[in-house]
Amino acid sequence: MSNQLHNELKKDLPAGKAGFQLERLILFSDAVFAIAITLLVIEIKIPDKEFLKEHGGLSDVTISNALSELVPKFVGFLVSFLLIGLYWSIHHRMFGFVTSYDRKLLFLNLVFLFFVALMPFSTGFYSEFAGSELFEKQLKVPMTFYVLNFCSVGFVNYFMWRRIGNKKNKLAEPPVDPLTLKLAYARSLIVPFLFLLMLPVAYLTNVLFAVYIPMLIPVVIRILKKQIRKKHEKNHVEKIVL
Amino acid sequence: MSNQLHNELKKDLPAGKAGFQLERLILFSDAVFAIAITLLVIEIKIPDKEFLKEHGGLSDVTISNALSELVPKFVGFLVSFLLIGLYWSIHHRMFGFVTSYDRKLLFLNLVFLFFVALMPFSTGFYSEFAGSELFEKQLKVPMTFYVLNFCSVGFVNYFMWRRIGNKKNKLAEPPVDPLTLKLAYARSLIVPFLFLLMLPVAYLTNVLFAVYIPMLIPVVIRILKKQIRKKHEKNHVEKIVL
Amino acid sequence: MSNQLHNELKKDLPAGKAGFQLERLILFSDAVFAIAITLLVIEIKIPDKEFLKEHGGLSDVTISNALSELVPKFVGFLVSFLLIGLYWSIHHRMFGFVTSYDRKLLFLNLVFLFFVALMPFSTGFYSEFAGSELFEKQLKVPMTFYVLNFCSVGFVNYFMWRRIGNKKNKLAEPPVDPLTLKLAYARSLIVPFLFLLMLPVAYLTNVLFAVYIPMLIPVVIRILKKQIRKKHEKNHVEKIVL
Amino acid sequence: MSNQLHNELKKDLPAGKAGFQLERLILFSDAVFAIAITLLVIEIKIPDKEFLKEHGGLSDVTISNALSELVPKFVGFLVSFLLIGLYWSIHHRMFGFVTSYDRKLLFLNLVFLFFVALMPFSTGFYSEFAGSELFEKQLKVPMTFYVLNFCSVGFVNYFMWRRIGNKKNKLAEPPVDPLTLKLAYARSLIVPFLFLLMLPVAYLTNVLFAVYIPMLIPVVIRILKKQIRKKHEKNHVEKIVL
Repeated sequence: MSNQLHNELKKDLPAGKAGFQLERLILFSDAVFAIAITLLVIEIKIPDKEFLKEHGGLSDVTISNALSELVPKFVGFLVSFLLIGLYWSIHHRMFGFVTSYDRKLLFLNLVFLFFVALMPFSTGFYSEFAGSELFEKQLKVPMTFYVLNFCSVGFVNYFMWRRIGNKKNKLAEPPVDPLTLKLAYARSLIVPFLFLLMLPVAYLTNVLFAVYIPMLIPVVIRILKKQIRKKHEKNHVEKIVL
Repeated sequence: MSNQLHNELKKDLPAGKAGFQLERLILFSDAVFAIAITLLVIEIKIPDKEFLKEHGGLSDVTISNALSELVPKFVGFLVSFLLIGLYWSIHHRMFGFVTSYDRKLLFLNLVFLFFVALMPFSTGFYSEFAGSELFEKQLKVPMTFYVLNFCSVGFVNYFMWRRIGNKKNKLAEPPVDPLTLKLAYARSLIVPFLFLLMLPVAYLTNVLFAVYIPMLIPVVIRILKKQIRKKHEKNHVEKIVL
Repeated sequence: MSNQLHNELKKDLPAGKAGFQLERLILFSDAVFAIAITLLVIEIKIPDKEFLKEHGGLSDVTISNALSELVPKFVGFLVSFLLIGLYWSIHHRMFGFVTSYDRKLLFLNLVFLFFVALMPFSTGFYSEFAGSELFEKQLKVPMTFYVLNFCSVGFVNYFMWRRIGNKKNKLAEPPVDPLTLKLAYARSLIVPFLFLLMLPVAYLTNVLFAVYIPMLIPVVIRILKKQIRKKHEKNHVEKIVL
Repeated sequence: MSNQLHNELKKDLPAGKAGFQLERLILFSDAVFAIAITLLVIEIKIPDKEFLKEHGGLSDVTISNALSELVPKFVGFLVSFLLIGLYWSIHHRMFGFVTSYDRKLLFLNLVFLFFVALMPFSTGFYSEFAGSELFEKQLKVPMTFYVLNFCSVGFVNYFMWRRIGNKKNKLAEPPVDPLTLKLAYARSLIVPFLFLLMLPVAYLTNVLFAVYIPMLIPVVIRILKKQIRKKHEKNHVEKIVL
């Protein structure tokens, strides 16, 4: 209903404006992505000179030690950078198909950006406690927070694909072909589900095991892509044959 | 007068430049929106490991407690994110109609962005004192500051609509149709007025009641939209009949 | 010489790319403007709850006092926001005429952005010491730093206008008409010169007097504009007559 | 293989979308550049009023002293601003030739942006220890970290040029001419190699000497450019003759 109203409004727009309106939505999202991905580094605090002077003196050794304590922060920065980068490229691909938008997509996109904007906090929070204490004390809360935040990014992204993929909404014309859509659904779900897996592993066995699960992502995506490509080629052949 | 001069200057612009100049104004605004909306998260400080070690030790329990103290910050982040997002989408719709600009619109837009850029501070300030102390001590100053900041966003937005809606200014061609304009005026005023309502409620009755007023926003907007839609349909029928 | 090389390189660009290259330069500048203007608010630190609890207790009175100590910061934020906004709009107008660029303009623009990016620091630094101490202790260093930073923005802007205004460089085609150029030169110089005036006033008389000089800016610009408009009209008439 | 899949996906994009997809990639990169270059200033902490009050009192002298301690920070800000600006302008030129992209370029670009986004940290870290202590204690760790970060920017940039320069990848059509490419390769390698030179100099001789190596960059680039220009002219003549 509200979408219908929105479409009516859109009809009143000056010619040539509709395309720019969509671009603006996309570029606004890009700016949020860019800021979130760059703010990640703010959580890595520079070792304090005065503190070092009082604790062991100023030398390459003490600075190296201070730097080595930041390793979990650097790893967190790297992982989150790649994850936000991955979802940026998914968002980038997704909106390559989109030719129109309605209020629901706008709202879904805003919720999506909310969770993206929260990532610098979650990354900083998780990596603050991701030193040796994580395993010694079996800390699960920071990991849970991080996993839930990131999964929210993934799931909202999935709902965006569903909305765009549904031909009735006429958000992508020509509509996205079914196989591409299937790949998109799979890709946008597989990453959050792998992350979710971290929680039972951490709570039921050992936090140590959970930490390494994200490393499976590139492997799983590669397997998935190969399989879909196989189907795609078979399908392609069928299309040509029939 | 100064606008006339500005138009004269515009005539001297190379062909095809005028459109880009407007786009640039819009994309600059989007960047400010994007930064303000993402900076909101900076005010949520990560629980300090060293502090926790000294106060109760490092465990899931102490971390959870530290996290639960941040709940007002998270709520503030969410609310302000949605409010800035709402005004971004209003700004987005508004400039969908705009085909030209003058110095006054440029200035109004700058003032608008000033109050948007102040939102991260106001949000952080309000949510810093929005724990249990807010009710115990009946703190009204942080809420007042937040409300006034946000209302300024809303009212300046209203003045922008008025400037664009006024056919004499020739900022939107074809001019925005009167009904859309009426909806726009109503929408851009209803939110700040609901927020302003918080102040008498807080000062005359209890801060506790005031806090929950913003929750009425989606309800009121929904009612408003339905009513305008009804009028719209009636109007539409009339247009067809006559 | 290096510009010639650059032009040769440009000839090799795919058709339709040259325009986008210029847009990219502009949008990059806009992003730096937007970030600098939004980061200004980061220097306004939220009053600390724990600190207030220990100093006078948590109440509307103590919070108001803490807030009132931030007044110089708010004034600094407002003034710098308007100044950066002014220079953004000048940059916006300037590049409305530009149809090409060379390496020197690119470099001048980068230096210009350097001083814009430094503004959040200078603003924070000046307003940190702009309380009652400024007058009591006649502090001149923070003001000098701020004035020099802002004047650099203005003077580099002036050199950009000169480069664009010089027909030989072929950066604006059709070339900017001489009167518009004269107005642009005057505008981009008048603001830094008014600011520079603060320094002799502060050093020779009293810091208190210097602080209020920037308030003259809108007045002086208005007078300037009227005078140039008068000439413009006279000139216009002459053009028609001859 | 994955690139082929990507190309197939691209064929399904609505007409006129492919160009915008490339623009989006570029503007996203610009936003990261703009944020990184502006965040550099955040690491320069404003002298604390309360601290000064307790240490020597509030006066122009104590403020000047506090400011002079920030000199290494300012130098770091300036150098990193120019370096990021240099690589932005290289990125800007590079993508002037690009007419298409594949997954590998997208990934390389993301890795490139990762190291750009890390620059504010590295700059802050290096300049934190770049006061007189650097020479007294011959601190090499902060410099090494900075050099390695910046070199990563340079080397990933070089790999991007190689990918774009390789005609087989069809990322630039018409392909970049060989001489321009040679200049680009040289330029993108010469800067990181000059920086790498800092490490043996610092470790084998004296940190003091290493610090001044970056000053050679403008000189070396100028010499390089002249030489390539000579070749270019000779080549140009040959082209005309033959």
